[in-house]
Amino acid sequence: LPVQEPVQFYFDFASPYGYFAATRIDGITERHGRTVVWRPILLGAVFKITGMQSTLSQPLRGDYLRHDVPRFARLLGLPLTIPESMPVSGVVPSRAYWWMAGLDEAKARRLARALMDAHWGQGRDISDPDVVAEVAEGLGVERGALEAGLQDEAVKRRLREETERAVALGVFGSPVVVVGEERFWGADRLDQVDRWLAGGW
Amino acid sequence: LPVQEPVQFYFDFASPYGYFAATRIDGITERHGRTVVWRPILLGAVFKITGMQSTLSQPLRGDYLRHDVPRFARLLGLPLTIPESMPVSGVVPSRAYWWMAGLDEAKARRLARALMDAHWGQGRDISDPDVVAEVAEGLGVERGALEAGLQDEAVKRRLREETERAVALGVFGSPVVVVGEERFWGADRLDQVDRWLAGGW
Repeated sequence: LPVQEPVQFYFDFASPYGYFAATRIDGITERHGRTVVWRPILLGAVFKITGMQSTLSQPLRGDYLRHDVPRFARLLGLPLTIPESMPVSGVVPSRAYWWMAGLDEAKARRLARALMDAHWGQGRDISDPDVVAEVAEGLGVERGALEAGLQDEAVKRRLREETERAVALGVFGSPVVVVGEERFWGADRLDQVDRWLAGGW
Repeated sequence: LPVQEPVQFYFDFASPYGYFAATRIDGITERHGRTVVWRPILLGAVFKITGMQSTLSQPLRGDYLRHDVPRFARLLGLPLTIPESMPVSGVVPSRAYWWMAGLDEAKARRLARALMDAHWGQGRDISDPDVVAEVAEGLGVERGALEAGLQDEAVKRRLREETERAVALGVFGSPVVVVGEERFWGADRLDQVDRWLAGGW
């Protein structure tokens, strides 16, 4: 069999739909024998490039999102606590992810899931480095190492480069799943991703 | 059994996702013993009210749409010809619909489907009153009556009022399906509509 390139899973920690997709993407890709790379980015930076704005701040669409998110979470059977700060800044959790990914990608993914569960499941403010450090400690990550990682210029650069690469690939929202030349935008498109990985249509 | 209010199906003729949803909404509502009212509106007028703009004209999102629409049509097994004029003005087909709906709602729905098939299936320009008249003639509609209907002040007012009502209901895109207090945005949410009509979750 030819080696297939990994599926790319782009998301912003501030995006509830990214949280929904994160709970499903590993199972879907595994079922088709594919690997997946998680790639947190900063949609705020994407919006600056594209001239768009956060859904939350758009008239009508923001209201729709506030109603749709709890409804979608109930459908998926996921815990949800709407955070007081929404949208949260994804800078700190994203840097934590990219720092950890440089050491251990599987552990970085567990950290991302734990951070999403803290933010979207429990409503915790993951823009706070102390909260991120506490969540990371739960995975056995030493606080001092994490704090140093958050300040590492290479980590900061990596997040900027990942965001720029996402824009170059046409990523404009969260989540976006990239399969080869195909992009699928939205948590409500994971069934299409599943079918595409099964051989397309 | 209590009488249940009809499902509301909001769409813009210029929206390919409205076309996709139009091919499925009757089957879904019928399966659950519900009626549905088709309500074409003008998203351009909605965007003026909400300060948003057409997806097509947004960086990255427009490119995504141009790729996603043919892919989605293939998934649904629907004919698709990307129209040369996109987005088309929905004024003429929408007025034709609301004129006909005042006489015969079932026939108005068949007209809407025929207009969508002409535009999205065959790439025809349904902003042209002659094209709309020709499509309507295929359903036995007399051309002179249609042309008079398109100029009828009551019909023009109806379309404006329907669009304003849609905004008041929080409709900001196409398609939006309204079930009681619930709104579902997007052709990719019809499976959720189906489950909601089956009793929700």
